[in-house]
Amino acid sequence: MPNKMNFLKKYQEIISEELEKLELPDTPKELYEPIKYTLSSGGKRLRPALVFLGCQLYSESIEDAIKPALALEIFHNFTLLHDDIMDNSEIRRKQATVHKKWNSNIAILSGDAMQIIAFELFTDLPKDVIRPVIKLFNKTALEVCEGQQYDMDFENRKDVTIEEYLEMIRLKTSVLLAGSLKIGAIIGGASKKEADLLYNYAQNIGLAFQLQDDFLDTFGNTEIFGKKVGNDIITNKKTFLLITALKLSKNTEKENLISLLNNQNIKNENKIIEVKKIYNNLKIKELTENKIKEYFSKSLKNIDSLELESNKKQLLIDFANSLMGRKK
Amino acid sequence: MPNKMNFLKKYQEIISEELEKLELPDTPKELYEPIKYTLSSGGKRLRPALVFLGCQLYSESIEDAIKPALALEIFHNFTLLHDDIMDNSEIRRKQATVHKKWNSNIAILSGDAMQIIAFELFTDLPKDVIRPVIKLFNKTALEVCEGQQYDMDFENRKDVTIEEYLEMIRLKTSVLLAGSLKIGAIIGGASKKEADLLYNYAQNIGLAFQLQDDFLDTFGNTEIFGKKVGNDIITNKKTFLLITALKLSKNTEKENLISLLNNQNIKNENKIIEVKKIYNNLKIKELTENKIKEYFSKSLKNIDSLELESNKKQLLIDFANSLMGRKK
Repeated sequence: MPNKMNFLKKYQEIISEELEKLELPDTPKELYEPIKYTLSSGGKRLRPALVFLGCQLYSESIEDAIKPALALEIFHNFTLLHDDIMDNSEIRRKQATVHKKWNSNIAILSGDAMQIIAFELFTDLPKDVIRPVIKLFNKTALEVCEGQQYDMDFENRKDVTIEEYLEMIRLKTSVLLAGSLKIGAIIGGASKKEADLLYNYAQNIGLAFQLQDDFLDTFGNTEIFGKKVGNDIITNKKTFLLITALKLSKNTEKENLISLLNNQNIKNENKIIEVKKIYNNLKIKELTENKIKEYFSKSLKNIDSLELESNKKQLLIDFANSLMGRKK
Repeated sequence: MPNKMNFLKKYQEIISEELEKLELPDTPKELYEPIKYTLSSGGKRLRPALVFLGCQLYSESIEDAIKPALALEIFHNFTLLHDDIMDNSEIRRKQATVHKKWNSNIAILSGDAMQIIAFELFTDLPKDVIRPVIKLFNKTALEVCEGQQYDMDFENRKDVTIEEYLEMIRLKTSVLLAGSLKIGAIIGGASKKEADLLYNYAQNIGLAFQLQDDFLDTFGNTEIFGKKVGNDIITNKKTFLLITALKLSKNTEKENLISLLNNQNIKNENKIIEVKKIYNNLKIKELTENKIKEYFSKSLKNIDSLELESNKKQLLIDFANSLMGRKK
């Protein structure tokens, strides 16, 4: 077993090497170049790392997990590629998005091809795990599409509930992390019970992570957060914070909040200050922190129930802390 | 075995029933409604029919082929759905395309989901065939993407060769027909040699069919063809006919042809007459007919080599004739 936090780094190195070794055809150029461009653009490689972690918890060798780990990374990058068309995003990982660098048609088609390449990477799995792994992957992939559809739906809705929001981020983000870890565990030989516990662990930590992302966009420190704070407020993004504030505010405060959302003339910096004032009155910061803690605790409880040696459980605790940016 | 030409009809009925039985979720509505809309829009159901045919040649039961047959139909419809975005087509099977009825984002995402649903329909295959079937499907699916990319590339190129064109239609159309038949044969228990012969048979008949489509667009009878003749000429579509004419024409004739292609002011009916005059001079009609016959004969030769009883071989001959609209 790799030592403490170094294991993540090791997994990321393996996946980078394997991505470089991946042999994609050269032609048609406009189909495969955008794929190579996307896959070489970096990223945290969290999903393949989780596949490796899940496998290594139950097996000495991660050999069988390498191609599935690549599949998860390629599938994740495919969803980003298509999401970027849908959201008309221009920049991803500090470089032009595929639909901006080439065009939408090329982005659609190269994304479609990435999905097929991901599927193919499961087909060399041993006979006893190929079916459950592919079934779990398909279920997860479809849920990610559902999450993306809900996310788009919510942009045009004013009545999104907190429960609906949590379900959306679960589908859009958490299930792929959970599916990755569980796929690795199945390949490693975990029992159904263990694999399910790991799924829940990763799903909970994924929800905590996504809520923390919402939290930091408003209450974070720009230097630590790495991007400008307040963007969600400027764009009226329906985050856990805003949905909670809309639910809890009453009378004049609610009217003020809604008029801030509808105000096209207010300066961005003033909008951030005014919305944050309302958030502070409603204790949105504390409520969000509590919700994050709730999911974080749940994920740690899932670890408790696992039948693993304590040094392996520690890896899962370390991963959770690392994902949340927490030092031990 | 079903009798003579009735077998195709029977297969189409089975697939229609199975498509109706297919249980798709209701929500998110805007993800699954476009899929149901697409799958209920009809079509010839050729690919699932080929899966059934391939299976029935080697097996009494087509039970195991039902879900894979659905997968091929759903995958085919997914490619049409995404192609319609890329080509900005407004109508498909006499109804609005998904990206026109809803929007491009919904069309992208529901297409992505269809691809996943297709993949899932292979996962209940028996252990001894699941891997080769999925591998063949993935290879085929990626080739279809390559064909679509070449097709888009060719729109902006003036130097497309006949060989490149034939390779493009092979990838875009024929391999999916060939893959469908071979998948059915593998499920039915065919040997590798038999499955490969069937693949070649369907690939050749697919090429003959696609070339006939080019042929009929220019030389067909509107009543029989079912759509207006001459559309390829009006839109300068790089078909086998035009590419061959550009290759064979010389001097003034070549200049005339190119100036007809570039002439924005000519009336459509006159353009059709003038281009057809050049085609007639160059014997494009006969050259295309010969090429169609060449592929048709090749496909029949593949049947000869099969180790099947003659009544089963007759089904393949009947299918070839039926696809080409030929009465026996």
